[in-house]
Amino acid sequence: MIDYLGLSEIRRLIAELGVANVISGLADEIQSDFQRWPEFETSARLASHSPVGVIELMPISDGRQYAFKYVNGHPKNTAEGLLTVTAFGVLADVSTGYPVLLSEMTLTTALRTAAMSALAAKWMARPGASVMAIIGNGAQSEFQAIGFHRLLGIRRLRLYDVDAAASRKLERNLRSLAGLDFEIVRARSAAEAAHGADIVTTVTADKRNAVIVTPGMVSSGMHLNAVGGDCPGKTELHRDVLLRRDARLVVEYEPQSRIEGELQQLPAGFPVTEFASIVRGEAPGRGSADEVTIFDSVGFALEDFSALRYLHRQLLAHSEAPRRIDLIPAPADPKNLFGLLDRGSERLRRVS
Amino acid sequence: MIDYLGLSEIRRLIAELGVANVISGLADEIQSDFQRWPEFETSARLASHSPVGVIELMPISDGRQYAFKYVNGHPKNTAEGLLTVTAFGVLADVSTGYPVLLSEMTLTTALRTAAMSALAAKWMARPGASVMAIIGNGAQSEFQAIGFHRLLGIRRLRLYDVDAAASRKLERNLRSLAGLDFEIVRARSAAEAAHGADIVTTVTADKRNAVIVTPGMVSSGMHLNAVGGDCPGKTELHRDVLLRRDARLVVEYEPQSRIEGELQQLPAGFPVTEFASIVRGEAPGRGSADEVTIFDSVGFALEDFSALRYLHRQLLAHSEAPRRIDLIPAPADPKNLFGLLDRGSERLRRVS
Repeated sequence: MIDYLGLSEIRRLIAELGVANVISGLADEIQSDFQRWPEFETSARLASHSPVGVIELMPISDGRQYAFKYVNGHPKNTAEGLLTVTAFGVLADVSTGYPVLLSEMTLTTALRTAAMSALAAKWMARPGASVMAIIGNGAQSEFQAIGFHRLLGIRRLRLYDVDAAASRKLERNLRSLAGLDFEIVRARSAAEAAHGADIVTTVTADKRNAVIVTPGMVSSGMHLNAVGGDCPGKTELHRDVLLRRDARLVVEYEPQSRIEGELQQLPAGFPVTEFASIVRGEAPGRGSADEVTIFDSVGFALEDFSALRYLHRQLLAHSEAPRRIDLIPAPADPKNLFGLLDRGSERLRRVS
Repeated sequence: MIDYLGLSEIRRLIAELGVANVISGLADEIQSDFQRWPEFETSARLASHSPVGVIELMPISDGRQYAFKYVNGHPKNTAEGLLTVTAFGVLADVSTGYPVLLSEMTLTTALRTAAMSALAAKWMARPGASVMAIIGNGAQSEFQAIGFHRLLGIRRLRLYDVDAAASRKLERNLRSLAGLDFEIVRARSAAEAAHGADIVTTVTADKRNAVIVTPGMVSSGMHLNAVGGDCPGKTELHRDVLLRRDARLVVEYEPQSRIEGELQQLPAGFPVTEFASIVRGEAPGRGSADEVTIFDSVGFALEDFSALRYLHRQLLAHSEAPRRIDLIPAPADPKNLFGLLDRGSERLRRVS
């Protein structure tokens, strides 16, 4: 039997803890895991591409616990009423190889991505940043807004999406949150949204080399949080934005970002900073007030590892009897797996 | 919601269908999938090794369905009352990226491994083979015996294990099966077990370069079913057995077997036959009556793909209402994932 954290559990945990607290708890967990970066066995994720999307497995281990996430990305799904991204994950014990937790990760991926974005911005954005543009107002956008509200005190939002209904939905959802005091402007273009913003978050879904942010939209001292460009052939920033002389590019895990991030547009030797080196004090998050900082986020397995551990602790702390599922057998004699078939009806013994 | 096939379902299905029928059904499914080998996107599995074991992810896709298995291998587990191998798997729809089935695969791996072994032997062993040695009498051994009984008509077994209790357990389990007419000899050594056998199955668990089968144990025309050597540093056959001039080496998937199989003992260019080419009529299973055929089995993702599809069909055919789990959300508006948090108590809206 292993612990199970399904949709009903994650919704209950968010209700108990509050969504901003969950994002903030995740950010703390992710930061402390990045601080012990050398303990992790890391690898680029294993992707299976089809003409309409991608299915990925993202494993990681710190030598004591192992985690992996299954996640898909199918931009055309929304037209069929389905989610672009769904995900689930497993936490396992390295010493026995036994899984210990199966968890939903669709909502969790949105939460941990917002936590990672806000955490990176805390280290990289100009102190006092107060205006954020959100370009791409789909499934992840509310979580980004709440994360930046909580971790950076962002109060002024400028929204843009090619689908105006998505922006209206985002505004409606944010206004429904008691205790949040956002000043919200819906812009008519990405450029209008970015105008005057301290932080520009791009979280679009199209699986193509798009140009969401052009060079003219970027001003000195801006922080770009580029979330949507996260697999080969899927980017959001114009190449010249990355090549600005005053730009600093920060990635989660260099080998993966070279293939999947905005970085795929640049030559192999182009210098980048890994986020771990910032939280470990080996590199600055921002070099100067005028620097353009770019968090070229693709999502890394460590963030899911952190999320699974955080949620498992919360599940055990906030449940009297967590749901468990019979995914793994427990025979009385481990060499007698066949013995599991001996219980129950005599028909179990029938062999033909 | 996705379909769930847990331990209670697999036990019930085996009770309904009969264990030999399940193995035989799996063998048919595996064979027909190997026959359409070029349709699959294949990759070597992704392994995370620790000093005490390994955790692997095994993905595969045929462009319509995607499957992966999580499986561990921890030989020291049995001393702690735990299984050496546990596993579970998922079947997903490539066009949407949505998972459709979560299934136990600990019992299923034993069943599909036996099915694969017997299927390979059907193509490779000498016609009329009637005596099989089973060296290593642990968790997988009963399934091997039943598979070879059903698919090849093997009636005479010669058992050996360094742990005599394991051999007694295997004999007891096999004798408990109504309708099976095994003649069973417990041998005092691996060599004694192999003596006079037409087929030698090795299914030991030690994670090391062991020498279970020495050159002197192999006779002309023998078929070796080498199941236990299945990861780097874990082999069962003496190198000289593989190098016999009259030996033919058959593997499931060459790139993986070069790293994980008995083949890891041989130079990179050593010729092997992939099993798919045999069932596709491109290569013979056995060249002559005197040839020593060696199935260097490590377990390949295609076998799990076949098993998940077979079991899912059986689950749907034999259940009035299969169990389902809330692993994947279904929001009314796919761009409004956040909306999932709007239902239920007002506390859901609390953000601090």
